[in-house]
Amino acid sequence: MLECVGYGATAASTPVAPFSFNRRDPGPDDVVIKIAYCGVCHSDLHQVRNEWRNTVYPCVPGHEIVGHIVAVGKNVTKFHEGEAAGVGCMVGSCRTCAACKEGLENYCEVGFNATYNGVDPIIGGPTFGGYSDSIVVDQHFVLKIPEGMDLAATAPLLCAGITTYSPLKHWGAGPGKKVGIVGLGGLGHMGLKIAHAMGAHTVLFTTSAGKTEDAKKLGADEVVISKDPAAMAAQGETFDFILDTVAADHPIDAYLGLLKRDGTLCQVGAPENPLSIAVFSVIWRRRSFAGSLIGGIPETQEMLDFCAKHGLVADIEMIAMDKIEDAYARMLKSDVKYRFVIDMATLPKAA
Amino acid sequence: MLECVGYGATAASTPVAPFSFNRRDPGPDDVVIKIAYCGVCHSDLHQVRNEWRNTVYPCVPGHEIVGHIVAVGKNVTKFHEGEAAGVGCMVGSCRTCAACKEGLENYCEVGFNATYNGVDPIIGGPTFGGYSDSIVVDQHFVLKIPEGMDLAATAPLLCAGITTYSPLKHWGAGPGKKVGIVGLGGLGHMGLKIAHAMGAHTVLFTTSAGKTEDAKKLGADEVVISKDPAAMAAQGETFDFILDTVAADHPIDAYLGLLKRDGTLCQVGAPENPLSIAVFSVIWRRRSFAGSLIGGIPETQEMLDFCAKHGLVADIEMIAMDKIEDAYARMLKSDVKYRFVIDMATLPKAA
Repeated sequence: MLECVGYGATAASTPVAPFSFNRRDPGPDDVVIKIAYCGVCHSDLHQVRNEWRNTVYPCVPGHEIVGHIVAVGKNVTKFHEGEAAGVGCMVGSCRTCAACKEGLENYCEVGFNATYNGVDPIIGGPTFGGYSDSIVVDQHFVLKIPEGMDLAATAPLLCAGITTYSPLKHWGAGPGKKVGIVGLGGLGHMGLKIAHAMGAHTVLFTTSAGKTEDAKKLGADEVVISKDPAAMAAQGETFDFILDTVAADHPIDAYLGLLKRDGTLCQVGAPENPLSIAVFSVIWRRRSFAGSLIGGIPETQEMLDFCAKHGLVADIEMIAMDKIEDAYARMLKSDVKYRFVIDMATLPKAA
Repeated sequence: MLECVGYGATAASTPVAPFSFNRRDPGPDDVVIKIAYCGVCHSDLHQVRNEWRNTVYPCVPGHEIVGHIVAVGKNVTKFHEGEAAGVGCMVGSCRTCAACKEGLENYCEVGFNATYNGVDPIIGGPTFGGYSDSIVVDQHFVLKIPEGMDLAATAPLLCAGITTYSPLKHWGAGPGKKVGIVGLGGLGHMGLKIAHAMGAHTVLFTTSAGKTEDAKKLGADEVVISKDPAAMAAQGETFDFILDTVAADHPIDAYLGLLKRDGTLCQVGAPENPLSIAVFSVIWRRRSFAGSLIGGIPETQEMLDFCAKHGLVADIEMIAMDKIEDAYARMLKSDVKYRFVIDMATLPKAA
């Protein structure tokens, strides 16, 4: 077994703290990655606090993982020792269903195996995520990091990047299209950068007037303060697509009303409570309210290549591993521009 | 002015009663139809009772109109005196916006002119619907009734038929597709017949076990009692498309969970209160919750031709004009199989 150190939670009520654990010995299809950086996703906090009521403890979170390959199994042809590599939200799937065959492992009909809180197929028990020194992953679920990308700022692309890229591409964001991004957090700032790079006329919706200048620097053609009814009304029925990244309760009808005929609002933020939707918001103009979950592995590679080509990475704030609970507290207040990334060099050598 | 007799409401609190009124003199593009039958849509009741808080009184409802042409204006080339013809929910639109140019007058960007509670473009005031002896309509908004169709049973196709045909066609119902129809009322029974005729494997969802045999006769390949959790669970993640015709509050998440990846649930029933949707119902499997509003004029003609070809009409119960309030009361109890149609021969000669 591969002895690892990391940070994890042993119960919903205890903080994330130093934790030693084992991973499976690398098999012939496995890649071993020494983790350099791991992004901090809101899901990490939901999971360690058992807010989705499905957490298996101990829980080592983290699914925005970048580092360098230190070993490869004998069947591994795509990767080589010393290369930069990434791992996102998934480390396995059935590989045989229609979704997997289409490269949409995120929609695997059996269910994908999550990077943490999943089940290791060899040794059982929970899978452990990226708040750790290294990880063992089947080569199919490992991503190449294009040359020249800032490694730390690339980490958040593995979740926040693909979660926004996938729906933007699926619903055709591009030249001639007007696209809205709701919310300027970890997901929103990546959605904004990507929609802009795709060539769409991109409008950022925020409740905070103070974010206007930042949003324009990040690629917004327009910024709308969503609390201003006149500003919202002026955008009525003009959008082809709106990507809603807000995970708090918020009025969806106000955004549905901004869509053109046949427009779609896609939710990627996941509010805890059900949303309320007036039926006429969708009957009128034949609109759709949709959702999207991460993205497939081929599409994740495509997103990384797209970001490399367009010079896109996340805007990050680097933290030491022992500051994770402070980072969670600030994340809950949206006090981060725009993603925390843990520097794994700060991990204690033995937990 | 053309003197007409009909039935209408003069206030939200008074019953629909005999009423005399004028329509515009037919212009060069107009067709005058002597109305033979008019279907009774739930919208009629909403409108006369001012339940949408926008009713202009006096209000003569009715937008499922069939009859025979008794006069045509000099520019009218498509229609001839003596022919059977129909009028649905619209009698006008801007004719110049992108939607109108695509034949989707129902999504006219200016707003379509409704058959009742609209505005007559020549004489102003409210437009008056089909609970009357005759109607004057621009030829563009008049439909041909194919030879051999039962006229009375064709009337409901002008609203219930097109309202279900349009989304079924838009979302690709056909051979190899599994389609659900929720609710077996006026809309639902037409959706069921049309989806079956389109070649889809069609499943009818109802709360009433007593409707099973009827649903099968109408074209259902399967009938699922939606109050039976095991029966619902057995259908999980198998539907390409679900058409929801229920206008009462009901649990949408239960139906969203039956959709495959990229499946759509389209709402055509219009519950008064907002619906509650759990975000994971759409994020999971990238599903969509959509709406659809009637259909365009070319598509309505296509629907009539499709129904003629497949021998489809509505299942109706004929009533005399003076029984309309009884019909409304029974409609509210879903006590109709499956649409009331008024025989206009029963209209008093002068109101």
